[in-house]
Amino acid sequence: MDTGTLEKMDVRDPLNDLRMSEEAVPLYEAVKKFVAEEVEPMSIKFHELGKDRKDRFAYVPGQLELLDAVKDKAKAQGLWNFFLPNAETGEGLSNLDYAYIAAVLGKNRLASESLNCAAPDTGNMEVLERVGTPQQKEKWLKPLLNGEIRSAFAMTEPDTACSDARNVRTQAVLKNGEWVINGEKYYASGAGDPRCKIMIVMVQTDPDAQAHQQQSQILVPMDTPGVEVLGPMHVFGEDDAPHGHMHIRFTDVKVPEENILLGVGRGFEISQLRLGPGRIHHCMRSIGAAEKALDLMLERGMTREAFGRPLIKLGGNQEIVSRARIEIEAMRLMVLKAAKAMDVLGNKEARVWISMVKAMVPERVCKIIDDAIQMHGATGVSQWTPLANMYTQQRTLRLADGPDEVHHMVVGRAEIGRMGMKGLK
Amino acid sequence: MDTGTLEKMDVRDPLNDLRMSEEAVPLYEAVKKFVAEEVEPMSIKFHELGKDRKDRFAYVPGQLELLDAVKDKAKAQGLWNFFLPNAETGEGLSNLDYAYIAAVLGKNRLASESLNCAAPDTGNMEVLERVGTPQQKEKWLKPLLNGEIRSAFAMTEPDTACSDARNVRTQAVLKNGEWVINGEKYYASGAGDPRCKIMIVMVQTDPDAQAHQQQSQILVPMDTPGVEVLGPMHVFGEDDAPHGHMHIRFTDVKVPEENILLGVGRGFEISQLRLGPGRIHHCMRSIGAAEKALDLMLERGMTREAFGRPLIKLGGNQEIVSRARIEIEAMRLMVLKAAKAMDVLGNKEARVWISMVKAMVPERVCKIIDDAIQMHGATGVSQWTPLANMYTQQRTLRLADGPDEVHHMVVGRAEIGRMGMKGLK
Amino acid sequence: MDTGTLEKMDVRDPLNDLRMSEEAVPLYEAVKKFVAEEVEPMSIKFHELGKDRKDRFAYVPGQLELLDAVKDKAKAQGLWNFFLPNAETGEGLSNLDYAYIAAVLGKNRLASESLNCAAPDTGNMEVLERVGTPQQKEKWLKPLLNGEIRSAFAMTEPDTACSDARNVRTQAVLKNGEWVINGEKYYASGAGDPRCKIMIVMVQTDPDAQAHQQQSQILVPMDTPGVEVLGPMHVFGEDDAPHGHMHIRFTDVKVPEENILLGVGRGFEISQLRLGPGRIHHCMRSIGAAEKALDLMLERGMTREAFGRPLIKLGGNQEIVSRARIEIEAMRLMVLKAAKAMDVLGNKEARVWISMVKAMVPERVCKIIDDAIQMHGATGVSQWTPLANMYTQQRTLRLADGPDEVHHMVVGRAEIGRMGMKGLK
Amino acid sequence: MDTGTLEKMDVRDPLNDLRMSEEAVPLYEAVKKFVAEEVEPMSIKFHELGKDRKDRFAYVPGQLELLDAVKDKAKAQGLWNFFLPNAETGEGLSNLDYAYIAAVLGKNRLASESLNCAAPDTGNMEVLERVGTPQQKEKWLKPLLNGEIRSAFAMTEPDTACSDARNVRTQAVLKNGEWVINGEKYYASGAGDPRCKIMIVMVQTDPDAQAHQQQSQILVPMDTPGVEVLGPMHVFGEDDAPHGHMHIRFTDVKVPEENILLGVGRGFEISQLRLGPGRIHHCMRSIGAAEKALDLMLERGMTREAFGRPLIKLGGNQEIVSRARIEIEAMRLMVLKAAKAMDVLGNKEARVWISMVKAMVPERVCKIIDDAIQMHGATGVSQWTPLANMYTQQRTLRLADGPDEVHHMVVGRAEIGRMGMKGLK
Repeated sequence: MDTGTLEKMDVRDPLNDLRMSEEAVPLYEAVKKFVAEEVEPMSIKFHELGKDRKDRFAYVPGQLELLDAVKDKAKAQGLWNFFLPNAETGEGLSNLDYAYIAAVLGKNRLASESLNCAAPDTGNMEVLERVGTPQQKEKWLKPLLNGEIRSAFAMTEPDTACSDARNVRTQAVLKNGEWVINGEKYYASGAGDPRCKIMIVMVQTDPDAQAHQQQSQILVPMDTPGVEVLGPMHVFGEDDAPHGHMHIRFTDVKVPEENILLGVGRGFEISQLRLGPGRIHHCMRSIGAAEKALDLMLERGMTREAFGRPLIKLGGNQEIVSRARIEIEAMRLMVLKAAKAMDVLGNKEARVWISMVKAMVPERVCKIIDDAIQMHGATGVSQWTPLANMYTQQRTLRLADGPDEVHHMVVGRAEIGRMGMKGLK
Repeated sequence: MDTGTLEKMDVRDPLNDLRMSEEAVPLYEAVKKFVAEEVEPMSIKFHELGKDRKDRFAYVPGQLELLDAVKDKAKAQGLWNFFLPNAETGEGLSNLDYAYIAAVLGKNRLASESLNCAAPDTGNMEVLERVGTPQQKEKWLKPLLNGEIRSAFAMTEPDTACSDARNVRTQAVLKNGEWVINGEKYYASGAGDPRCKIMIVMVQTDPDAQAHQQQSQILVPMDTPGVEVLGPMHVFGEDDAPHGHMHIRFTDVKVPEENILLGVGRGFEISQLRLGPGRIHHCMRSIGAAEKALDLMLERGMTREAFGRPLIKLGGNQEIVSRARIEIEAMRLMVLKAAKAMDVLGNKEARVWISMVKAMVPERVCKIIDDAIQMHGATGVSQWTPLANMYTQQRTLRLADGPDEVHHMVVGRAEIGRMGMKGLK
Repeated sequence: MDTGTLEKMDVRDPLNDLRMSEEAVPLYEAVKKFVAEEVEPMSIKFHELGKDRKDRFAYVPGQLELLDAVKDKAKAQGLWNFFLPNAETGEGLSNLDYAYIAAVLGKNRLASESLNCAAPDTGNMEVLERVGTPQQKEKWLKPLLNGEIRSAFAMTEPDTACSDARNVRTQAVLKNGEWVINGEKYYASGAGDPRCKIMIVMVQTDPDAQAHQQQSQILVPMDTPGVEVLGPMHVFGEDDAPHGHMHIRFTDVKVPEENILLGVGRGFEISQLRLGPGRIHHCMRSIGAAEKALDLMLERGMTREAFGRPLIKLGGNQEIVSRARIEIEAMRLMVLKAAKAMDVLGNKEARVWISMVKAMVPERVCKIIDDAIQMHGATGVSQWTPLANMYTQQRTLRLADGPDEVHHMVVGRAEIGRMGMKGLK
Repeated sequence: MDTGTLEKMDVRDPLNDLRMSEEAVPLYEAVKKFVAEEVEPMSIKFHELGKDRKDRFAYVPGQLELLDAVKDKAKAQGLWNFFLPNAETGEGLSNLDYAYIAAVLGKNRLASESLNCAAPDTGNMEVLERVGTPQQKEKWLKPLLNGEIRSAFAMTEPDTACSDARNVRTQAVLKNGEWVINGEKYYASGAGDPRCKIMIVMVQTDPDAQAHQQQSQILVPMDTPGVEVLGPMHVFGEDDAPHGHMHIRFTDVKVPEENILLGVGRGFEISQLRLGPGRIHHCMRSIGAAEKALDLMLERGMTREAFGRPLIKLGGNQEIVSRARIEIEAMRLMVLKAAKAMDVLGNKEARVWISMVKAMVPERVCKIIDDAIQMHGATGVSQWTPLANMYTQQRTLRLADGPDEVHHMVVGRAEIGRMGMKGLK
């Protein structure tokens, strides 16, 4: 009996050392301390100030000052932009090390931004650092690295299934040295923030090219005439202001020819650069959400009684808790291994690992949060716990950055390929 | 109830004739016509008028006039209060017949109210009709039957698991011929409506009595001093205005001794009267929601393409559709059978059937809606389809009127009892 | 909101009257009595006699005499061949009525045969009755109707996925007025019985015809030279002797030209005749198995203790029981409705209902039996309960007569068709 | 154990280095080579010789000679008894290192025995090494270490749920310097082997003691008068000869007082010694089975066609493959981590990790094998693939060494304890 890959199991596979590197520990500790001592207290004041604001997509006076003060402190302590690899050498924090730090950042919504490590700026900066021209870097990367402006990434379109790259319908046509863009995007995250000045937009530049060379990525300043932010897309009724997932229409939007990134027809290639790390970070935060849900489930179950016993002791509740713990530990190991795979094998080779965790984590975290809701009774769906909101966020992740089905397709195909039939029709 | 092993299978069991009675068909047809021709067009105008209202828990001028005009027409056509059995004879529309009609009413949010068949008024009127004193009927039942006022039912409490009746903590103490009520209720449905004038409140009157004789139900006018509506409870961020699920505090609320319903210590007994039919109606509407979700899933899957094929043809989507259809048909048969069981066996004997469908339906409908969301990609969680809202409503039903776990307990116990060990510790 | 088919719901749909017809009740009662009073005691002696037999595919002296005596009594009482519709009028016991009787027959392995209602003879006789020539009827139908011989049906092939009809590879070529058959079949049920004299074999007669006209069905006597029974196929290690699921090789097997049934290229058409009722009966028996498993689960759970409580009261066991009961009731209603659909709509129109129950029932019954096994601990997988054997039988049904996937495909396609896109690629 | 919320996550936790130690690699490689070059060819001859044997619980001439020759080679190469830690120092191969080796041993049924690392001898030898008296070691450990005899472990009883230790009913009463044992055990693995000479039996010595001090473990030679092997217990119809899971009755079985292990009332304490490593090894083999099933699923799905496409491309099959791969990788990481936890934290502290993997692995492997069966159609349940047998083995593991429910209870309780309420009633 050939037990498959077991045969080829490398017992000393570096992918199985899932510990943070020793070098990164001081940074990890510093970030943890900073989030607890600086970001947390600022965050309370920030939300207090903003709670009665009229315009949900604006900041009230004082909010940005609070945030900027903390950003200055972070910069001073060197806790700034550490997500960024060196453009020349490609070196920087490893994905595994960053995964551990992402878990810390996931605990407070303002933590990432305080350290200039917030999406989608991180991906945008990484792309500009790696493929931007000197002019592009000067104009957009520099203020982004300084935390002076924010940015957006517009990829998904309302009318087609964008998990198939060929379905990009927003067109950019070169006329008189300018790209003229027409189309519609939605769920452009971050485009609602008043500080957002620049967007990277996925466009179709050649519908007749090969499937993966039809698209380009292009820089579009938010204030370009013809860019119309139609409003926020909701997620289970939430608008996620002021960040927002915006619905944007492009009508004869003109940008200079040189705003193209890397080159015409290389849009898909650039996508590969950004997707991996972001997904790992999302997954680490999802696991954090699952831990939080499990803690809430336990607390509720241990402090409420029915039929003379604490809820946690009734029916299958203890098994539900056990299954949650098992899933959390399994997910954590898998996400760490995917991060390590990116470090050891490179993003391209690690793409199956990334798809594995992207297909695995949000679905299971949804289940855990849902179980926590059930343990809370009607309180579980109310505004009195964060559970309902956590659920809708995780549910949305099953659709963002490729729906689960597409990631299962990637994994399934890799398995078929492993058996030596890559070209199976 | 004997759920019957095969051995005892009665091949001519009247429970297996699930057709509407011939006598009820004309009413069913009339309701269908009325909803389509009167309620639908009114409903569009009603929501258009209210869409920019400032106070979400108020009506804007013109809204109630529209609604009242339709209510008058319904009254004139005899499509009014037909949910109500005769207090003396107990006769009225059968539960099975009403189940079919409830499915029609479930199609438009204003349909039930237009025919004075809206919850929680229906349950409240039924209770008053059956157990109310002549004075209680004159004062509260009459205006309710006329559709002049609305009512609320306050049972659930925020601090305890109310699926165990002994956990009712809101206390009513008799002092000088008045009940003095102190405590807190939440998810009091309908209490947000400005027309709501009266509440039936479940209170604890004797903590030392037998478990099911500790509670009473009592009439509390909304404007009684000490009744404080603290605000709406949210359901995944929705406030369900203007109806609302309100959070209410009772501080030394005083009502006359005669406001008690049926008698002291009989609160639990009254509960049994109201729970069955309401659950059947909810379940019929849930099935309507599942049908809607399946239709949307099909439409989306057939009109969007990826990888050169319509989505519906990709991966396991066709099987997902098949499983949804199978569940819908199975649920419908089960709900109709539960309604028939109430007609043939009575509410008490049919309680296991009611628990079976209450535990079965919302959970499976959630799954179907969730699959429909997935087929829609990011649009599925947005405000562009009703799916996200449908999901949160169905999810909440798994907690309302007893969480799934309690209904499974009822069914499980009946099975144990069937095997002859009722007193199993 | 259009809630889909609800709109078109026919509240007086005859499909929703799931009671046995009054006319059939006496037969049902007679069969029940006969099984209890005649078949049961004979069955005990029969198995006792055979338990130490050397050749598992033979009967020991005395066994067939016991069986034949009971068959004679059944014949004398008119409890014989009642499965069979009149060839001219198509009339006979309705499918719904037969479904109730099938549930009774499912309780004892020898019951069906005792009344000459055992598969695959029933399907074979039905086919011969409807499409056989006078000669075919004289030679094969008559002794089958008399219970003198038994028969087999050979359709599935080892090397291809036969859920796609085009995959039939066993070839029949017409040479000199004879069909020459070459190929291999497996899981030919009944072919192991020494009394089996005739087989209906699905063969490919024209590989170039339309997909559903490539196949024919042909009568092959078991003793034809070139028919080689290679041995029994196992089902989880069981050989199901003496009935058997045989592996058969055909090497230049020659039968007269007139042995073809109905006509060349009409093999698929004949298949449609036989599949529906058999599936309904299988499903009714599966539900009987689920009832049995639930009873065993309850008995075990109520009589064994751990940690000071009966097992049934531990963890989620009561919910497991409840879910089993809910599934059983839902399955029963669905199967009865599918049977009724065959009666009212005809086999062709009812095919989606048949696929629904075929995809629904064995999968869920497997789950219920599996839960019953778990409740029994190690005893559950042992020879001390029938559960392990019941499980493997039900598991096999998920593959027999079309795997679940094919039935889900049928249902999914019908839903797509309902939405008006029959030709969806 | 503190399973750690994110807050306390130790980024350098040694538990997250899941690589085999460098020191163990040569042994691992040697074992791999030995299994491939020596065990595999011997194994083929061994099974060929035995295939028509009459007495399933005996060896035919030549079989044991083949096996012994390979055992001698293993001994000569030092590939012998390496499972055993030093009794004085407790040192030996780490659990993590042994887990990797167990995966290799799991590929051939005779591999473990060839290296004298077969259950239940391993556990029995470990127990004797750690707690045996010099006399016990001389008499039983020595021949076991030499591979001259084999042994059994009798714990489970047919009439009670043995997951609760207090349910041990087999009694040992001290009379005149002898223990007199009466009772019944079943699923005594290995007791069918003719070379089995000694059994360790769990007995109740004091029904009035504390729950975990009522039991003792005692050495009972197989040939002691009163020991009656009633026959093999089946597992889904398989008898697992010649090893067997035997049903044994003890009638006034007398053994010397000194046959008790460690001391009266310490039976439960000894159990803790043996359970961990065995479970890890079972889990590693289960994962090997899952890998095998996935490979077979892929092979079948890629080489069979229906409806013009390979099966693997139909319906949700690719997603099924993906989910299998994800589960396998997650399970492997979890099992390796549990092994590492035993090395770093000790068996006692690691018990929650062991319960996590024991509850996780067999259930999920069953699902993967079941999916592989479905992909094979009827061949999947037949004797033509190992799948049906693999399924029944894995299904049995969900009951052996504590049913899933008990392991979930252990994990659930640990979570409750983590939240600070250890004594929760």
